[in-house]
Amino acid sequence: MSILPDALNGKRPDFLEEVKGSITAPAGFRAAGIACGLKKNKQPDLALIVSDVPAQAAGVFTKNVVQGHSLQLTRRQIAAGQACAIVINSGNANACVGDVGLADAVSMTTQVAAWLGCPSGQVLTGSTGVIGHRLDMTTISRGIGLACERLSHAEEAGHNAERAIMTTDTKPKECVVKFVLGGKTVTVAGMAKGSGMIHPDMATMIGILTTDCALDHSRLQVLLRLAVDPTFNRVSVDGDTSVCDMVIALANGLAGNAVPAPDSEGEQKLLAAFVYVCRKLAREIAADGEGATKLIDIRVEGARDAADACKIVQAVARSPLVKTALYGEDANWGRILTAAGYSGAVFDPARCDIWLGNLMVCSGGTALPFDEDEAKKILQESEILIRIILGEGTAADHFWTCDFSTEYVRINGSYRS
Amino acid sequence: MSILPDALNGKRPDFLEEVKGSITAPAGFRAAGIACGLKKNKQPDLALIVSDVPAQAAGVFTKNVVQGHSLQLTRRQIAAGQACAIVINSGNANACVGDVGLADAVSMTTQVAAWLGCPSGQVLTGSTGVIGHRLDMTTISRGIGLACERLSHAEEAGHNAERAIMTTDTKPKECVVKFVLGGKTVTVAGMAKGSGMIHPDMATMIGILTTDCALDHSRLQVLLRLAVDPTFNRVSVDGDTSVCDMVIALANGLAGNAVPAPDSEGEQKLLAAFVYVCRKLAREIAADGEGATKLIDIRVEGARDAADACKIVQAVARSPLVKTALYGEDANWGRILTAAGYSGAVFDPARCDIWLGNLMVCSGGTALPFDEDEAKKILQESEILIRIILGEGTAADHFWTCDFSTEYVRINGSYRS
Repeated sequence: MSILPDALNGKRPDFLEEVKGSITAPAGFRAAGIACGLKKNKQPDLALIVSDVPAQAAGVFTKNVVQGHSLQLTRRQIAAGQACAIVINSGNANACVGDVGLADAVSMTTQVAAWLGCPSGQVLTGSTGVIGHRLDMTTISRGIGLACERLSHAEEAGHNAERAIMTTDTKPKECVVKFVLGGKTVTVAGMAKGSGMIHPDMATMIGILTTDCALDHSRLQVLLRLAVDPTFNRVSVDGDTSVCDMVIALANGLAGNAVPAPDSEGEQKLLAAFVYVCRKLAREIAADGEGATKLIDIRVEGARDAADACKIVQAVARSPLVKTALYGEDANWGRILTAAGYSGAVFDPARCDIWLGNLMVCSGGTALPFDEDEAKKILQESEILIRIILGEGTAADHFWTCDFSTEYVRINGSYRS
Repeated sequence: MSILPDALNGKRPDFLEEVKGSITAPAGFRAAGIACGLKKNKQPDLALIVSDVPAQAAGVFTKNVVQGHSLQLTRRQIAAGQACAIVINSGNANACVGDVGLADAVSMTTQVAAWLGCPSGQVLTGSTGVIGHRLDMTTISRGIGLACERLSHAEEAGHNAERAIMTTDTKPKECVVKFVLGGKTVTVAGMAKGSGMIHPDMATMIGILTTDCALDHSRLQVLLRLAVDPTFNRVSVDGDTSVCDMVIALANGLAGNAVPAPDSEGEQKLLAAFVYVCRKLAREIAADGEGATKLIDIRVEGARDAADACKIVQAVARSPLVKTALYGEDANWGRILTAAGYSGAVFDPARCDIWLGNLMVCSGGTALPFDEDEAKKILQESEILIRIILGEGTAADHFWTCDFSTEYVRINGSYRS
């Protein structure tokens, strides 16, 4: 079936319709995003997403051994497989503050549960921001009350929620698709924040998917992981991964479809919708990386095996020298080959070709004469494709990153101030 | 014996005397450094170091699978164990230009051999600079002739050679020590270039050690590797490693000492001298990293094993978020713990303490209240010590790096231009 490859390559499968909207687009989801005062600049900093009926829930979390307190609680609660709400604050990571951090996370969930009249075990929580400062719970409590009062099915309420989870992001990242499953219209919506501290397993990001599709939570977990791997786990901004990263999916079943059988065409359609949404959000995270001026799409082909292909795209995506050269619009492809060379992958450089866009700059490991003006033109585009073609095997992989600018340094030299 | 630990900790062992001088300080070494025109700015770009008698030779090379043509030739020639000269150009890496690159490297060695009247197999060569451009051999030939005419035992000649291997370095890096071995005075001199594309195995660097000590080349190789591991292989500027990195040691025996027995006190003294010189140069490479404003000394203690200790110091040294925070003099220790957390090392964050200089900022994985002014004062120093104390075992490691500034991006956004 060609559904999944199409979605992976960014081609929207014919059965999928992309529509305007927000996280509230699927039936039965409400949201709110408000400014309660955790951020100094009075920007929105508390998001709440609620399903009108308990939803099946699944999550993918950071592999960092240091984990934020809110994330730890969510990881534990989601194991039961159902959730009716998720509350997320920005401006403070609720991490590395000792036992009180877990107590504060629990308090967030019990407060939301009290407002909504649902079990606190069905409220998930996330926090993103600076590490090592205790949450101001008076501010949080006021924020939770306000958010619960403002909960709405309106599209704008979802946009507000997205704005409330952003930290150094400059643009909101949202995507909504619809498709027909067994005669019923199913909607999948996603929103994400990213920007700095971004690298796989997970990128420093929070992503939320909502859908009204009916599905068992164990299959939701399977599909979510399949969707995250080639999308959110293929983004690097700076090689750092945070302690608060997670992608949560909620599926409330209000579309009224029959639960699709495992690996059926119906389930594959839902997976393709997840991949399409996650891919779009992942690329937007890379393009909106801190200080980024360009989206860099790195592909390797002809690697010995999948592990080697992954090592190479990661090393190139992570190299400050590659990324600063791209910022400077300098066709210094030697740095690309060099990064591939130290990636740990096994290959013969004498069989390696490198392309910048449609311009081949290195053939068989050897420099090709090329038109510097043509190269400059390619590097001035807002999206740059780098292809590394080895002659070792048939494995391929891809990675999205951004260039590395003086602005990145400025943003991160004064993040806490 | 306390000789080696002292040298490793930067304490000069009592028997070692540090003196003014250059790579020509050991008996029987001549040098030259001239500007032949490879660099656009007319700065010195060709260095020649010659031993009056054939010297024992040893080398440690980059682990990058992509390797420059000059380096490949040197790696092959050094296997014989003797060398009388090394010629190094900057301004061009002689890498990724196809078969002609090896032919050009061979031509460099035959030309030097012809001038000196020695076998071309005893001439080593190195190149550093931009990748993928063929060497201008007319310029190189003129430079080799000029350098051979200018060869001198004078201290200044060694300083000229050092200047000629520098690329984006802002300061020359040289060190000379003397000690008595079996009644004879032995001298060890070192010079290095570094700056960008710096990470272990190897850092993007070229290092040359000369000594008049008498020693078998197989032992020279053993001692060189022992000296490089805790010094040059513990430096990271940007996580990138180049295709031209090498450290070469030449020992010509003109001190007249009896060859020390393997692992004898005499050999340990020579090793301590190597470590002392390499450590000093390694720290200078980190401090002079591209755009650096500070030297960062990262230490981990109490790790489960040596591999985990190494993973943690490397991850912290490589983290752009840690390095930009240090540039911004922001005590954002959460980023240090986060980098340790994604390093791949196994540890319980709840047993981890973090110190900035003499200020403990995190105890048992939990934020400590600390005086921000005191922290700022520590972070304003030109050298900053970061200690990560785990409670997992007894393994320790260290790493030197620098902060990450807007200047780094500026330098590397326009390196080829």
